[in-house]
Amino acid sequence: MTLTIDDVMNPAARGRSLSRRAEEMPASPIRKLAPLAELAKARGTRVYHLNIGQPDIETPACMRDRLKTLESTVLEYSPSSGTPEFIRSLQSYYERRLGMQLAAGQILATTGGSEAILFSFMAVCDQGDDIMVVEPFYANYRAFAAMAGCNIVPVVSRGRDGFHLPPRELWERALTPRTKAVILCNPGNPTGTVYNREELDDIANFCREHGLFLISDEVYREFVYDGRKAISALEIEGAEEFVIVVDSLSKRYSACGIRLGALVTRNGELYDACLRMAQGRLSPPGLAQFIAIGAESLGDDYTRGVVEEYQRRRDVLFEGLTSIPGVFLQKPEGAFYCIAKLPVEDAEDFAVWLLTDFSHEGATVMLAPANGFYVSPLGKSEVRIAYVLKEEDLRTSIQLLRVALEQYRLK
Amino acid sequence: MTLTIDDVMNPAARGRSLSRRAEEMPASPIRKLAPLAELAKARGTRVYHLNIGQPDIETPACMRDRLKTLESTVLEYSPSSGTPEFIRSLQSYYERRLGMQLAAGQILATTGGSEAILFSFMAVCDQGDDIMVVEPFYANYRAFAAMAGCNIVPVVSRGRDGFHLPPRELWERALTPRTKAVILCNPGNPTGTVYNREELDDIANFCREHGLFLISDEVYREFVYDGRKAISALEIEGAEEFVIVVDSLSKRYSACGIRLGALVTRNGELYDACLRMAQGRLSPPGLAQFIAIGAESLGDDYTRGVVEEYQRRRDVLFEGLTSIPGVFLQKPEGAFYCIAKLPVEDAEDFAVWLLTDFSHEGATVMLAPANGFYVSPLGKSEVRIAYVLKEEDLRTSIQLLRVALEQYRLK
Repeated sequence: MTLTIDDVMNPAARGRSLSRRAEEMPASPIRKLAPLAELAKARGTRVYHLNIGQPDIETPACMRDRLKTLESTVLEYSPSSGTPEFIRSLQSYYERRLGMQLAAGQILATTGGSEAILFSFMAVCDQGDDIMVVEPFYANYRAFAAMAGCNIVPVVSRGRDGFHLPPRELWERALTPRTKAVILCNPGNPTGTVYNREELDDIANFCREHGLFLISDEVYREFVYDGRKAISALEIEGAEEFVIVVDSLSKRYSACGIRLGALVTRNGELYDACLRMAQGRLSPPGLAQFIAIGAESLGDDYTRGVVEEYQRRRDVLFEGLTSIPGVFLQKPEGAFYCIAKLPVEDAEDFAVWLLTDFSHEGATVMLAPANGFYVSPLGKSEVRIAYVLKEEDLRTSIQLLRVALEQYRLK
Repeated sequence: MTLTIDDVMNPAARGRSLSRRAEEMPASPIRKLAPLAELAKARGTRVYHLNIGQPDIETPACMRDRLKTLESTVLEYSPSSGTPEFIRSLQSYYERRLGMQLAAGQILATTGGSEAILFSFMAVCDQGDDIMVVEPFYANYRAFAAMAGCNIVPVVSRGRDGFHLPPRELWERALTPRTKAVILCNPGNPTGTVYNREELDDIANFCREHGLFLISDEVYREFVYDGRKAISALEIEGAEEFVIVVDSLSKRYSACGIRLGALVTRNGELYDACLRMAQGRLSPPGLAQFIAIGAESLGDDYTRGVVEEYQRRRDVLFEGLTSIPGVFLQKPEGAFYCIAKLPVEDAEDFAVWLLTDFSHEGATVMLAPANGFYVSPLGKSEVRIAYVLKEEDLRTSIQLLRVALEQYRLK
């Protein structure tokens, strides 16, 4: 903190400092290089964003068109749990998608999946409690853990295993007296891994045996490839009391900016606790809830079209990246990310260099260094790549990366 | 938690419980009676809502009309700090309203004022730290304190003093080694009190001397009556390093449902910490930011019209309530609330009875029991009343309250 004259004149004031939590709050590995990207753009360099899961797929017209039909003259608070219409729309979605009837009191509308994660962490953890997570993991879990004052305890998955769930013994070993929950992301960000039924049953059994909650982040539920099926933790039998599902409309309908998601649980006490937090912040976003109504009737045709598009992009990315010497990755099974190992010592240095020193034919690429997706000192030469750009841009990005890696090696 | 067969079969699982934080999270005193109101409505009773600050004033047409002009086909994430256009619109507003030039890096767009409060608490407090607050206070501060793991330390203000700031000695007495900040709401929810310059200078001096942050919740800035002026904590000289302003568009433009606000601070380190939290949740709501652009050009005419309307309502309410035997309140100076003392022993019991047992000519009123606005065992016979209904409805509500209090007395 910069000292002012007032502070210096007054010794007591010099004691003013931010919380340790604030100091420890990590910068987003996905966004922290954004200022460098802005500078590159200001120099006239075109930046291809492989760093962020912001799809270029259109938000469905039915959602955008609803904006033109809004008749309310007062943009009012909605109920803290979401408007009845929006909750009904989610009920229809779960019924169609998972063949499951959920009660209105089991679905809490949230400000994006983000808020559902925060509420989950706060509902199950006190200061100093532990949450187990498969590493590498979605970087912002760290931010929410820092906010909630709990610790992320990693259980390492390996690229050579396709980042599938680590064996039971590693889970048992990482368990502490303060472990309260396991959080999974399935399909996985940043790995693109899709857990099968056996894996989910195993982890549910682990949670059951040790009295843990299972927080299942399923915001990429629609995006599975090669005929795979994403299994929701809601489908695990006998896990009703300890499963908390984090859901979001951001990716499902390519509507990241509206900030609308849901927390789903059949544990009534947990729902009530989250509802009280929701009351504290009054309402989830109203315009988002308004335009979401009707989206549930976008059926399998819509999803199939989008998934085919992403699968094509995945194929382009996988073929392109594996053809670059020294780059290693597993073929992603779902979501729209992969973790790629690059032939560099420090992928963050490389990602910075791409934005500050490199351009080829007036363009460069932005990557998310994977170290932010680990708490262990791993992943130093890895990056997370989001394949949310259209094929042509993806091909150009891969070509740029190829040229950049050659130049960087000779540097 | 309801035990399932699985839990009973497995002793370890019985240890699964929610966090203490979750258990301690208070239900909103403003919203917890909502289910009773729904039941009353289902019985055909009209419920006049004096419990919630949801104005019936129209959201400005320029904001609603912008929805029809949205051309983006992808509803994308915005920058975590807000879109440049929205931040510029806030800069214009502060320049016009406070005559103050703020840099873009001093204004963080938030999901309502609510999120600005949460970020403030988390940025300055660790688990077990204290925040001082003038009691009675906005009830949801308790919820955010519970989320942040910090304690609300009340400094009691008195109705007979118009709920103005308590004398310095009470502040000194309430100070602890773990006090990190003072939070003020000015103009005040739930009191309607507007602090004058001397009071603000006093409290700023107190914060300066003791190395505290001053969190100033100014979401009712526009609403001051009888020619008063709301002074922003941003205007206090020499307080740049420790003032954090919580702002919101909810009340200013009668757009509570869009969930858009801002955290304003000239402490760069604090801004950065809040930005890292903001990155964790990705973006503030995008549609809200889009429609907010242009609202800053609604000038003094717009505000004057709205303020005149509220002042008329305040007068109707004040005259009406003070004419009811046994009801006491100070004339509110700003915002659109008052704390009224009722001739009942327990105002919560009365508020429940109004919804469950009372109706007059097919209608009843909903009140917010004031006990939720205190942590001290005070305010038991008080309620918070929001005068956000149009005059005619307010008059009817007051009449209903008069009849109800008579019936309740005879009960």
